[in-house]
Amino acid sequence: MLEAWLRPRRVVHAHCDLPCGVYDPAQARIEAESVKATQARYQNAEKFKTAGETVEDYRTRALAIKEQRADLVKEHLWVLWTDYFKPEHLEKYPQLHDLFWRATKEAGAAKKSQDPDQGQKLLDEIDEIGKIFWETKA
Amino acid sequence: MLEAWLRPRRVVHAHCDLPCGVYDPAQARIEAESVKATQARYQNAEKFKTAGETVEDYRTRALAIKEQRADLVKEHLWVLWTDYFKPEHLEKYPQLHDLFWRATKEAGAAKKSQDPDQGQKLLDEIDEIGKIFWETKA
Amino acid sequence: MLEAWLRPRRVVHAHCDLPCGVYDPAQARIEAESVKATQARYQNAEKFKTAGETVEDYRTRALAIKEQRADLVKEHLWVLWTDYFKPEHLEKYPQLHDLFWRATKEAGAAKKSQDPDQGQKLLDEIDEIGKIFWETKA
Amino acid sequence: MLEAWLRPRRVVHAHCDLPCGVYDPAQARIEAESVKATQARYQNAEKFKTAGETVEDYRTRALAIKEQRADLVKEHLWVLWTDYFKPEHLEKYPQLHDLFWRATKEAGAAKKSQDPDQGQKLLDEIDEIGKIFWETKA
Amino acid sequence: MLEAWLRPRRVVHAHCDLPCGVYDPAQARIEAESVKATQARYQNAEKFKTAGETVEDYRTRALAIKEQRADLVKEHLWVLWTDYFKPEHLEKYPQLHDLFWRATKEAGAAKKSQDPDQGQKLLDEIDEIGKIFWETKA
Amino acid sequence: MLEAWLRPRRVVHAHCDLPCGVYDPAQARIEAESVKATQARYQNAEKFKTAGETVEDYRTRALAIKEQRADLVKEHLWVLWTDYFKPEHLEKYPQLHDLFWRATKEAGAAKKSQDPDQGQKLLDEIDEIGKIFWETKA
Repeated sequence: MLEAWLRPRRVVHAHCDLPCGVYDPAQARIEAESVKATQARYQNAEKFKTAGETVEDYRTRALAIKEQRADLVKEHLWVLWTDYFKPEHLEKYPQLHDLFWRATKEAGAAKKSQDPDQGQKLLDEIDEIGKIFWETKA
Repeated sequence: MLEAWLRPRRVVHAHCDLPCGVYDPAQARIEAESVKATQARYQNAEKFKTAGETVEDYRTRALAIKEQRADLVKEHLWVLWTDYFKPEHLEKYPQLHDLFWRATKEAGAAKKSQDPDQGQKLLDEIDEIGKIFWETKA
Repeated sequence: MLEAWLRPRRVVHAHCDLPCGVYDPAQARIEAESVKATQARYQNAEKFKTAGETVEDYRTRALAIKEQRADLVKEHLWVLWTDYFKPEHLEKYPQLHDLFWRATKEAGAAKKSQDPDQGQKLLDEIDEIGKIFWETKA
Repeated sequence: MLEAWLRPRRVVHAHCDLPCGVYDPAQARIEAESVKATQARYQNAEKFKTAGETVEDYRTRALAIKEQRADLVKEHLWVLWTDYFKPEHLEKYPQLHDLFWRATKEAGAAKKSQDPDQGQKLLDEIDEIGKIFWETKA
Repeated sequence: MLEAWLRPRRVVHAHCDLPCGVYDPAQARIEAESVKATQARYQNAEKFKTAGETVEDYRTRALAIKEQRADLVKEHLWVLWTDYFKPEHLEKYPQLHDLFWRATKEAGAAKKSQDPDQGQKLLDEIDEIGKIFWETKA
Repeated sequence: MLEAWLRPRRVVHAHCDLPCGVYDPAQARIEAESVKATQARYQNAEKFKTAGETVEDYRTRALAIKEQRADLVKEHLWVLWTDYFKPEHLEKYPQLHDLFWRATKEAGAAKKSQDPDQGQKLLDEIDEIGKIFWETKA
């Protein structure tokens, strides 16, 4: 992993409307990992909570944090969809619209689910998007 | 790059105070890449601007966007510093405090500089932090 | 207009992921009206600016405000697309994905254009979405 | 409703300090509808919750969402009060200050109440403001 | 000043809707000081700017920052007005509504003015509010 | 207290990257007072809650609010650390880095603790920072 970090970095990828040309599906993925980790910790609240809080407190906080992280997943995916992808990409990957629609809906579903398997499904959909993203960059 | 994306992902790294245990210096790095790209585009406003805006308009927008991206760099670095790193890390890497102080000050300086070399310096400092981060994960 | 306001209000329209069931394309439209009004004022900065600011100051502020309003347009449209519309709607309106893609791209373009005609185009696309939205509510 | 949407739109009303001249009490109203809908769903959590969450989870989320929506109501009302209304309006409607004070206090009270009747009271106060607003526009 | 800091702190004053009971007009004042300082620096851009930016760049950033600080002034004042002050205060200080209306309007005017005297006027109005606030606390 | 407010104000202290030169540890302190007050009210939820909410509702809201206030404490402290303090201050106060690290970690801990004594510890650490800050201003 360290090696991967040190390797000359990819010449990367837009995420504002200047546009600056820096985009990276890693942004959505990191937040989705946080969503899944939070679901897993919710399930083991007893183990993860600290001394100063009850299991109920811990779960309340987990829900509030997951709500925000899932919003960030949506945000990052929407930006990729609208700002990075161009008509020529859509031609080559006609599934793009549906893929983003399902992935952002899955991020919304993550707010209502405390099951890490749901979070994994979200990660899988982001990875499908990531695969296409990196192919267009190749 | 595509291959790197597809490879079984690192089992990653906390960034909220649940804490969920998901941290990744890539978050700060992506924003810093955006800062540097914006500085470069500011320098070539004539070339990058679109038909509906003047060079002055384009630069105004570049400055406003850079201001926000630099803030995000600071934010992500501060979170890593306070939330991820523990006393045992500091013992092994006594330069940690200074490294983060300099990197966040450099992110502040990025708001005042339109020079991509300054942005590169910021990226280099983030990479120093990233190197340590991944060593602690090894 | 007053009458319209007083008339028994539509029992409307979800915009959070509870979900609360309250959605309304008016949210995107109001921000888009602000975008267009800002473009028009940018064109007549001399007339609209107040005594304490230069034409350049006024335009700088107009650009910064337009940037934010255009972001809000995107935000509200994305929420409608992902959260309100369901597969059965898509079946009846197969143009939905493309319509939202174009409208959010137009909102992004609004940041780079100082031409009120561009803002009008954005409003027209939002109205196309609004028309479908209200048909699904009928 | 559809017809209302299609009708030539009102030439509307400022909500930034450019100012762009676009104001509309609908912004506060939509958020207040969300507040009331959330209160109603809190009361019927058993029915509205999805399979992946407990009644307690659902209510926790409802409270967090209501907190934010009520804040947005306040925000939109404050902007109307300070930015749209002018001394000549106050002269004609001397109750304006008190009306806004009560309405924003009611929005604060909405955070502490799970009763949809309270949400309706908030909506009624916003409608009083809306009535005056549209009279000044007539 | 140091002494003032060290002195046993005032048993303070609400600013959320829990409510937690912590309110302090210092929050609005600090942001207003920033507004005035920014106006003064705008006037002396040549002197204050750093080597990596032009006078125009510096002023653009000053305007963007002032816009945000002025918004924070409004926000903090609105919270004080709606959340802290109660009917019994209004009875004793019937000028309260008008005072807050003028002060928040002045904060809006600060976005359009580059004159530190305007910023001082804003500070004076906040101080009038602060005086009343501390009398109600006495 | 009133007198302290009326006294000719300190010629104050930067908190943006213009920079405008206005900094004040009071910003972090006020939020930390809110954190502690919220912890105390959580402990006496029965007494502080209003009629329209259950003890559980009140505690859920207290946790969500405390989460945000603790974030603001961190934010204000990070800004002071990176933006206000200079190498010459560090030379004179070599404990600065550690002090800020501990204080921001304490703010993170405040999210997980419902004990007002923990909140007091956070206040004490902020006061240590405030003491140094005012000495550098003397």
